[in-house]
Amino acid sequence: MPFFKYFSRIGGFKKQMRFLTRRVYLDYASSTPIDRRMLQGLPKLPGAVVGANPSALHHEGVALRRAVAHAREQVARVLDVHSDEIIFTSGATESDNLAIAGTINRWLDAGIAPHEIAVFSGELEHAAVSETIAPFTVRGVTHVPLFTEDGVIAVNGLVRPEGIKAALVSVMYVSNEIGTVQPIVDIAKRIRKLRKLHPDIEFVFHTDATQAPLHFSLRVPMLGVDLMTLGATKLYCEKGVGMLYKRRALKLVPLIRGGGQEGGMRPGTESVSLIRQFAHGLAYAKEIREKETVRIASLQSYFETTLKSAFPQLRITAEGQPRTPHITHVGVPNFDSELLVIELDARGIAVSSKSACKNEEGNESAIVELLYGKNVGAIRFSFGRGTKKRHLNKALKALGAVLKKYR
Amino acid sequence: MPFFKYFSRIGGFKKQMRFLTRRVYLDYASSTPIDRRMLQGLPKLPGAVVGANPSALHHEGVALRRAVAHAREQVARVLDVHSDEIIFTSGATESDNLAIAGTINRWLDAGIAPHEIAVFSGELEHAAVSETIAPFTVRGVTHVPLFTEDGVIAVNGLVRPEGIKAALVSVMYVSNEIGTVQPIVDIAKRIRKLRKLHPDIEFVFHTDATQAPLHFSLRVPMLGVDLMTLGATKLYCEKGVGMLYKRRALKLVPLIRGGGQEGGMRPGTESVSLIRQFAHGLAYAKEIREKETVRIASLQSYFETTLKSAFPQLRITAEGQPRTPHITHVGVPNFDSELLVIELDARGIAVSSKSACKNEEGNESAIVELLYGKNVGAIRFSFGRGTKKRHLNKALKALGAVLKKYR
Repeated sequence: MPFFKYFSRIGGFKKQMRFLTRRVYLDYASSTPIDRRMLQGLPKLPGAVVGANPSALHHEGVALRRAVAHAREQVARVLDVHSDEIIFTSGATESDNLAIAGTINRWLDAGIAPHEIAVFSGELEHAAVSETIAPFTVRGVTHVPLFTEDGVIAVNGLVRPEGIKAALVSVMYVSNEIGTVQPIVDIAKRIRKLRKLHPDIEFVFHTDATQAPLHFSLRVPMLGVDLMTLGATKLYCEKGVGMLYKRRALKLVPLIRGGGQEGGMRPGTESVSLIRQFAHGLAYAKEIREKETVRIASLQSYFETTLKSAFPQLRITAEGQPRTPHITHVGVPNFDSELLVIELDARGIAVSSKSACKNEEGNESAIVELLYGKNVGAIRFSFGRGTKKRHLNKALKALGAVLKKYR
Repeated sequence: MPFFKYFSRIGGFKKQMRFLTRRVYLDYASSTPIDRRMLQGLPKLPGAVVGANPSALHHEGVALRRAVAHAREQVARVLDVHSDEIIFTSGATESDNLAIAGTINRWLDAGIAPHEIAVFSGELEHAAVSETIAPFTVRGVTHVPLFTEDGVIAVNGLVRPEGIKAALVSVMYVSNEIGTVQPIVDIAKRIRKLRKLHPDIEFVFHTDATQAPLHFSLRVPMLGVDLMTLGATKLYCEKGVGMLYKRRALKLVPLIRGGGQEGGMRPGTESVSLIRQFAHGLAYAKEIREKETVRIASLQSYFETTLKSAFPQLRITAEGQPRTPHITHVGVPNFDSELLVIELDARGIAVSSKSACKNEEGNESAIVELLYGKNVGAIRFSFGRGTKKRHLNKALKALGAVLKKYR
């Protein structure tokens, strides 16, 4: 992997950088490094074309519009949808905001009262979902939490609340924190049933699939979702781009205004370079999915078996549940999560304790407290294209040293 | 310039690309090509670091946070402001939306009635400004158009309307369409006077300076603005990033929710690579500003003199007004703008007739109709780092051929 073979032209940083080459990166669920070998497979656009504005009328503009159209088709093929159902955005966070605020605002604009709108969402949702819902609940929209049993949502929590005219269900595909796979297909089935029982209520189903593309199918007809968020942070390409799948018939109120780009749903000059990288990254992830999933699953199995036998006091979160192979979340009794991350970091192991997007707030993650109660810390080890068995051994050794130090 | 020395690895496109190398790009105001020589001055971050999440606790995350902080300081130095007053966004369109919707939504949230809010904006504003204002006027906010005299806003249009508790003024620094420089400093002075006269009214002054950084000072203390939009599309770096300057004491309601990034004003994993390029591009633009402005101004002067003597029937828009050297907007009587662009394009000259962000709508630009009345077409020639005198000669020759064809 070119990932570990870097060099720095920054004079002062050199020492730090040499230090970084010896490190073990096990935080792929937070953000993936750039896979330069993968990007070499993406034909370069000539400089003169790259510089233009894809909305311009001249040849350069047309060439860029074609490049965006090609990327859009590439993405549509992976999702098995129409290419006009893809809205490129600046990332997964924006896509979540557009999906949720765009749907609820359409209902409000149509004259549906806030108390006639219900939003169902899981306890594991990313802040981009839960914090977008929050201001609407302040305005009177009903929020119905979908409870989880050992990290997986109980589908029977999805019932029709009284006096509701419209309902939005937002459940993430794969938990970015503990790695559990949510029953998206079952939820879609239940929603179809509810639609039949209550034809007067509009149901919209959104999933944040940001963590899924490396190991799970994104075929929308199979999943049965109306809206799906994806982002570049997990696709081994440059960050700053993402997308929202929007079923053709569904209408949304745009979040950003001021241009006809993306069918008016997302104005602003397109970053063609990022969009092309994103589409390529997504197509590549699908291409190598089967093989890579087998490799990562066997690494995970080795890691978890070794971890359990070496440290019987630790618990693997949601162990018996369907989980993604690239995330192993570990509960550590009587330990502070942040201390664990910092101690491992000092020993050259880069991991996280929770979603990076929540770092500014409190110390412990809500889901860890929910699953383990108080006084249990957590670490998330996450694996990716650069991960080898020796990295896992190093991480286990370092973990042992940290646990010993504070015994 | 490396701009014209590109090559393509795309097999099928090769012929098209060879064709493109012979073209003359005079659409810099729409979007600038990537200046690879400039970007070579930006030290590369090592791959392992680039891959991480700047919010993560580990070394890789910290290194990226530092890189973002450094870029922020670089930008703050160009603007002569505090670095915590810089909010990085996905581009100028998002920044305009955040500035306008963020300010008005704060007032609405504070209980100020829509009819107690006034928004002043010019007739030349970009769609990202005018279309963000539009839904608020539907809800009852008063929109006060600031009229232009030959492309420059009349400052005396800025008066206090009756029964207003809060007023937002949004005027672009340099018109992206006709190139006129707006009297930002005078407007700021007038606002300061209004603030003194009506201490009960809150005034907020926003400027979209996207078109300004290459030739004009961005020093906020000199300009006297509270909010300022900038975007990467005009800075010769990768697109997909921009920023909003926000005076420290000013509060905004965020557009996007779900994380603590950018002080909670703009959540979502930062694209460190784009942010660094943007900051570097802005600093570089300032560094070469004086020299480049002289060069471009002399090119513009040559172009306009030759154009006027060769085609006396054409008019240079807002000729006597303060204008940016990199935009020459030409009125062509009895001609369709789009036809002009397409005919020039067929002769190898890439120009625009109006803002690329408006292409989806009607044929003619509102400002052209305002300045020239009906039956006048327009072309915008815009110059940049790659522009040489021979390009201008080619463009003039092609323009002559087009005018002759339709005589």
